[in-house]
Amino acid sequence: MRHCDLCIIGSGPGGQKAAIQAAKLGKDVVVIERMEVVGGVAINTGTIPSKALREAVLAVTGAQNIVAMAGDALLPEHNRLARLTEACNRVIRGEVELVRHQLVSNGVEILHGHGSFINPTTVVCDGPRGTEQISAERVLIATGTTPARPREFVFDEKTILTSDEILRLRRLPRTMIVVGGGVIGTEYASMMAALGVRVTIVEGRPRLLDFIDAEIGEALQYHLRQAGCTLRLSEKVVSIRAVEPPPGARSVEGMLAEATLESGKTLVADALLYCIGRTGATSALNLAAAGLSVDGRGRVAVNEHFQTSQPHIYAVGDVIGFPALASTSMEQGRLAALHMFDKPGSNIPDLIPYGIYSIPEISMVGWTEERLTKEGVPYESGIAQYKEIARGQLLNDEVGMLKLLIHQETRALLGVHAIGTGATELIHIGQAVMAFGGTVDYLVNTVFNYPTLAECYKVAAYNGLNKLRHT
Amino acid sequence: MRHCDLCIIGSGPGGQKAAIQAAKLGKDVVVIERMEVVGGVAINTGTIPSKALREAVLAVTGAQNIVAMAGDALLPEHNRLARLTEACNRVIRGEVELVRHQLVSNGVEILHGHGSFINPTTVVCDGPRGTEQISAERVLIATGTTPARPREFVFDEKTILTSDEILRLRRLPRTMIVVGGGVIGTEYASMMAALGVRVTIVEGRPRLLDFIDAEIGEALQYHLRQAGCTLRLSEKVVSIRAVEPPPGARSVEGMLAEATLESGKTLVADALLYCIGRTGATSALNLAAAGLSVDGRGRVAVNEHFQTSQPHIYAVGDVIGFPALASTSMEQGRLAALHMFDKPGSNIPDLIPYGIYSIPEISMVGWTEERLTKEGVPYESGIAQYKEIARGQLLNDEVGMLKLLIHQETRALLGVHAIGTGATELIHIGQAVMAFGGTVDYLVNTVFNYPTLAECYKVAAYNGLNKLRHT
Repeated sequence: MRHCDLCIIGSGPGGQKAAIQAAKLGKDVVVIERMEVVGGVAINTGTIPSKALREAVLAVTGAQNIVAMAGDALLPEHNRLARLTEACNRVIRGEVELVRHQLVSNGVEILHGHGSFINPTTVVCDGPRGTEQISAERVLIATGTTPARPREFVFDEKTILTSDEILRLRRLPRTMIVVGGGVIGTEYASMMAALGVRVTIVEGRPRLLDFIDAEIGEALQYHLRQAGCTLRLSEKVVSIRAVEPPPGARSVEGMLAEATLESGKTLVADALLYCIGRTGATSALNLAAAGLSVDGRGRVAVNEHFQTSQPHIYAVGDVIGFPALASTSMEQGRLAALHMFDKPGSNIPDLIPYGIYSIPEISMVGWTEERLTKEGVPYESGIAQYKEIARGQLLNDEVGMLKLLIHQETRALLGVHAIGTGATELIHIGQAVMAFGGTVDYLVNTVFNYPTLAECYKVAAYNGLNKLRHT
Repeated sequence: MRHCDLCIIGSGPGGQKAAIQAAKLGKDVVVIERMEVVGGVAINTGTIPSKALREAVLAVTGAQNIVAMAGDALLPEHNRLARLTEACNRVIRGEVELVRHQLVSNGVEILHGHGSFINPTTVVCDGPRGTEQISAERVLIATGTTPARPREFVFDEKTILTSDEILRLRRLPRTMIVVGGGVIGTEYASMMAALGVRVTIVEGRPRLLDFIDAEIGEALQYHLRQAGCTLRLSEKVVSIRAVEPPPGARSVEGMLAEATLESGKTLVADALLYCIGRTGATSALNLAAAGLSVDGRGRVAVNEHFQTSQPHIYAVGDVIGFPALASTSMEQGRLAALHMFDKPGSNIPDLIPYGIYSIPEISMVGWTEERLTKEGVPYESGIAQYKEIARGQLLNDEVGMLKLLIHQETRALLGVHAIGTGATELIHIGQAVMAFGGTVDYLVNTVFNYPTLAECYKVAAYNGLNKLRHT
């Protein structure tokens, strides 16, 4: 039996950062990874591959602007998708190597195999080279999630698929139904639309990405529609199946996907991407042996220090639920490692940015207008369109905008919302101002490099102050 | 005779922002612009056109990385340059229209013609529709600069040229000598190298861009050399002339450029770009009539409020000298307008960022290592390479790095230096942290969107803190 200070199950962003933090504290750390490569969903099937595909899409279409791209019919060359996804593999290999190097150079041991509990302090790793038992003072569950595949639907992984399979498609479908307008559904829908695929998105709520600012969400929906997407909002899918194409009709993969909506409509397309819900990857962990249980979606409950009901067993990342972002999972991993070895760590900061890598890109930090209104905080908004500034003209970004939410009395910056090129980078300037309790006056009095998108902050600040003067 | 509150000579960034600020204060503003279009050098021949060319170069070469590009021989197609510069014209027209719209919609009157003083309070505009005298309570000189063309050299604008003519070249030279390794020389040299032109840069100082951080400067020089540039540092040009090509040799423009160095070397190329010095565009202003004089380089002296020796006459922008950046000129214009009409305005903030749009891009804010060492401030540096983070891998940016300078005792952030994709945008995060007196702990404890270049701040912060622990 091997002994260690910390046994981590899963080498995704949360597991990695916890391992490195614990190793830096001089602890003996073992990471169990069920796949042959480290990195988890973030690197291998989720975040990074989809962002790599997005870069490749932007590169081949030569535009950051979904509307500009939609005119270019890229469809005739159906095998373009295979070439694009191949381009992603270089990035994936690079990231896997980077993470492995970081773990190994910090002295973290990586065991490949399925990890599961034998009892609360013993984990077994069942791998290609046999099984090994590990006795650990602390255990971290960082196994992430897998796409939900409701049992009533048959996922053939070619016509009816989830995000795990989409990057394995060899040919670009001509038409696609995307079920679920959350982050994953919206990102893939916008990429496919940029490639010229006719996309229909079905979302049960009245709008896509309902946690983002309504004005930004409206802009996204407008641009998706301009790019040829059909949005079926407040609609529910009741049946999904693969059907034979009618006589004489061609289909890309042999079969067609058919979705029936509760409202009675029937949608048919070359492929259907199912993006509703992800389930905690906990079923194989034998959590009962550790005295732990999960909720209906396979998720593990933790306290503010990421401790489960067994204080020596921690859990971080997607497996504990919201917000399920690689960025926050990393921070959770680091903080959990500090807490379990009695080192001081701050809490997760309140100002977590959200980045959505749709085309166009979206990001936000702080409060939304909806929330400020609900809480009775008097605010004014200041807006800059990218096309108003030189850098926006250089990028030919007709879509981009930055919105600041400003307290009417204190002029404090309360929220930043952006859509357009580089939105996920740009948001961090406002995040810093907010973190230090800054007001919009900082943005007015600051010199920004010219020409940059950062100038939007100044233009938006003036716009907001002008409105404040008239109230 | 027309009367106004403020007469501005020049519609570049400084003039524009002064005009808009004064108009917002309810003042009657006239702008005199000698060109047919507004915007000054920044929009028409300088900043924006060179940045538009840079975007076009990056787009056709398909890489952000000068080393990756250098392998692609783009040279066979010599008329590519004309197509590239044509692509810039759309951006220039857009910017001109934007500036005109902003001025006109704020009620600013634009007169086209040469402005000059008749007496300290009267300016005459000599334009295509005749002359008009304007009596003004306040006058702002915002005429900018023009490239210096030393009399001993003959500028034929085809073989021997300045930055004013380079964008009018119809064919790409095969070889180019760039005299002067300042901002303009370095930007154009790197763009030409990216297009496959064999470039030789001659600079009198021991390194290019000697005001930037030495490590960043070294990285820039390394990458320029990797891209095939020859650097002749600590060398002085003593003679420049256009010569007939030797019998049998071809040249792109009929003649060849020949430069002789003080060290005795002779350099020959298809074209020579002269980028040493710019002269205040003041010779036609009849400043003597206003009781003003200029220095040996045509520049006007001002106090901290941008007042000349005549307190009602102000000057802003490149015509007053350092730093001669569009970004600072705008802020100077705004502050001058506030001061002349007795409105409170802050001073130009200490934390002015510098952006250099070479390939790769460079930016900095705050102190350099050299300056901190000289002043005896104990510091440590923290470095992140773009290739260490996911976004850098996605961009395939092998060049990029971000360096933080951290006070050894207080952990305050003292300076940020960056080279690589998006450096000019990225710098503003550090600028905000520094403006609020933040420490490196902010960067450690912040969640950044994943994958973004902003994550470099966190990686660099850890790198710096690790070093601090070992001191």
